[in-house]
Amino acid sequence: MKIAVLGYGTVGSGVVEVLDVNKELIKARAGKEIEVKYVLDLRDFPGDKIQEKIVHDYDLILTDDEIEVVVEVMGGVEPANTFVKKALLAGKHVVTSNKALVAKTGAQLLAVAREQGVNFLFEASVGGGIPILRALGSSLTADEIEEITGILNGTTNYMMTKMFYEGADYQTVLKEAQANGYAEADPTADVEGHDACRKIAILSSIISGKMVDFQDIYTEGITKITTEDMAYARKLGMNIKLLAQCRREGSQLSAMVAPFLVGAEHPLYSVNDVFNAVFVKGNMLGDAMFYGSGAGKLPTASAVVADVIAAVKNPDKDIMNFWSMDKLELESYKDTVKRFFVRMEGEREALEARVRSDFGAVEFVEAGGLSGEFGFITPMMDEKGYEEKADAYRNILHMIRVE
Amino acid sequence: MKIAVLGYGTVGSGVVEVLDVNKELIKARAGKEIEVKYVLDLRDFPGDKIQEKIVHDYDLILTDDEIEVVVEVMGGVEPANTFVKKALLAGKHVVTSNKALVAKTGAQLLAVAREQGVNFLFEASVGGGIPILRALGSSLTADEIEEITGILNGTTNYMMTKMFYEGADYQTVLKEAQANGYAEADPTADVEGHDACRKIAILSSIISGKMVDFQDIYTEGITKITTEDMAYARKLGMNIKLLAQCRREGSQLSAMVAPFLVGAEHPLYSVNDVFNAVFVKGNMLGDAMFYGSGAGKLPTASAVVADVIAAVKNPDKDIMNFWSMDKLELESYKDTVKRFFVRMEGEREALEARVRSDFGAVEFVEAGGLSGEFGFITPMMDEKGYEEKADAYRNILHMIRVE
Repeated sequence: MKIAVLGYGTVGSGVVEVLDVNKELIKARAGKEIEVKYVLDLRDFPGDKIQEKIVHDYDLILTDDEIEVVVEVMGGVEPANTFVKKALLAGKHVVTSNKALVAKTGAQLLAVAREQGVNFLFEASVGGGIPILRALGSSLTADEIEEITGILNGTTNYMMTKMFYEGADYQTVLKEAQANGYAEADPTADVEGHDACRKIAILSSIISGKMVDFQDIYTEGITKITTEDMAYARKLGMNIKLLAQCRREGSQLSAMVAPFLVGAEHPLYSVNDVFNAVFVKGNMLGDAMFYGSGAGKLPTASAVVADVIAAVKNPDKDIMNFWSMDKLELESYKDTVKRFFVRMEGEREALEARVRSDFGAVEFVEAGGLSGEFGFITPMMDEKGYEEKADAYRNILHMIRVE
Repeated sequence: MKIAVLGYGTVGSGVVEVLDVNKELIKARAGKEIEVKYVLDLRDFPGDKIQEKIVHDYDLILTDDEIEVVVEVMGGVEPANTFVKKALLAGKHVVTSNKALVAKTGAQLLAVAREQGVNFLFEASVGGGIPILRALGSSLTADEIEEITGILNGTTNYMMTKMFYEGADYQTVLKEAQANGYAEADPTADVEGHDACRKIAILSSIISGKMVDFQDIYTEGITKITTEDMAYARKLGMNIKLLAQCRREGSQLSAMVAPFLVGAEHPLYSVNDVFNAVFVKGNMLGDAMFYGSGAGKLPTASAVVADVIAAVKNPDKDIMNFWSMDKLELESYKDTVKRFFVRMEGEREALEARVRSDFGAVEFVEAGGLSGEFGFITPMMDEKGYEEKADAYRNILHMIRVE
């Protein structure tokens, strides 16, 4: 069984390594040996033993009937989308780790795969090595999924963990994350929540069976989280995490990416460093959580190779949960209900009565070492209601949602 | 599509409820409606709407060609084993939640299922609603699994949690667990670790592909855990959990069930109350954890029904990881290496030199309020070595392994 790998970057070289290190057990489980015949990359890798398999022309792969599975690990929407579509149309299974691609054109590519009777698999696109997509598609099938809340971005979770436990400020931890290779030189996609947004769009599509457009999901990053916010969180016995959330409210789904205060009793509270986790609530199952390495060369490659094995073992089957091209209209995030933590400039004594009169039975909190400001947590209210109340104040320093 | 449910106890009534509440979505996912045609039970349930489906004669089910799936949720080895075998031989798929059955005769039943070309599925037998078996069988397939460590028994985890966080003693929490319905009148199977032992035997069989006899697994329960032990654990910043563990050491597997001290940085540390969790380490994946309700009517029934859906969707396939009837010889637990926490009667000052000379670079610990004793943690050593050293002391109050 011969495969081609598109892109010899971090994940691509990991795929080659996993297939090599675990060659024998993979052969036993897949029922046949899986061999990398081509690696497509613009670059050459003189001295690397992969060099003899490097090709620069995709047509070579497309027209080679020996290639049964194409592994797309280039990242980005184009040319990945064109390459994947061509592979599917040529009757080849495709496995990808590319969340940007799946969030953007997953519905179309699934439809093409279904028409062609081949598999389009993308477990590694969400949660790296955490097998959440297959769990939703083949294990949690007796349940109406009422909520999925994930820590889906390792870079920001590393940063939030450092800020929480070490008291470091945002800029310091960002530089540290960049120095450690956990954050890119341009960290926008991570710190602004764009990466997590694409992943929750994919999860929302899977549980709804319809296309959720990632551009419809309200997304707020971690760039405004300060050491002061963390001081309040510690005082509250809570943590601050960038959560990507999809909730069922009646017949509608809502979705959001934002920093949230998370209580110590929540399973996501203790998910630290670069680890990811996905919390799932089913109407029969109750609470479950899947935890693991959300990124990294080998964990991601492990998920890619598991998908290759699945494609080889199930050549005639649509093994991935299908979602249609019908677009799902999400409930506006403004109608979703939650509690809000607010930091306000001024003296609590002077403002307490007004705050209570506007927001109702709030819970006040003061953090040691912070003067001239105080915090409070509102009762449950919808975002619209909160915004209306908050608009009347000029002295709100920051608002963070409470999970 | 018609099924029969054997046993209308907690799980059996849960299965009927899940199929009823989620009827429409299950129909959509399975591709056909799943209807309970018979419920086998010795009892009658007058007034219950299931009564009209109650039968007392298993032959009625066996000989009814309409029945495609038999759900065995009676518990115990016999007559469950006979019933399951007959169903498989009659060409019916079988789904079970019965860990005693699977641990005892799983290998034989899998062989019969394979011969007959039907499925024998048992996701609910380990970890209730946590989809760990299918994850191992179809998601983590690119990895050599190096370790599985689980909190696999909700009753004992509830008790350990109460003892740790509330300082209650063993007898008090046992009574409370019994009053809450979390422990049975005869709690032996839970508190002595027998239940967890059967579950880790099943997991060990799945990752090795051979039959692991649960009777070969060293098993120690929680009955000797005291409030004093918990005081030391708190002092150490650790928790005490009943762990069921299977580890790969070179080409061999070892397995054990025992209370362990678990550090705060371990993902299992914060798994509390009746929740279960399974920690998995793969050679490529790294660390992962699956968390959820390990027991309870609806979570377990959710897993059973998910297996029924899988059987319906994959009628011609062996979808469960197969293990052969070849018996796996486990490495003796006496050869496994770990650290040991020891509570010793006497004054630390008087014994410190002797302890250091026997056990090496130990870490001493004293817990507030406990006089006339002290604790220490040994360096890494094998169980045999520990036992040899410990045998020379008459004043060891308790030993707990350190994860």
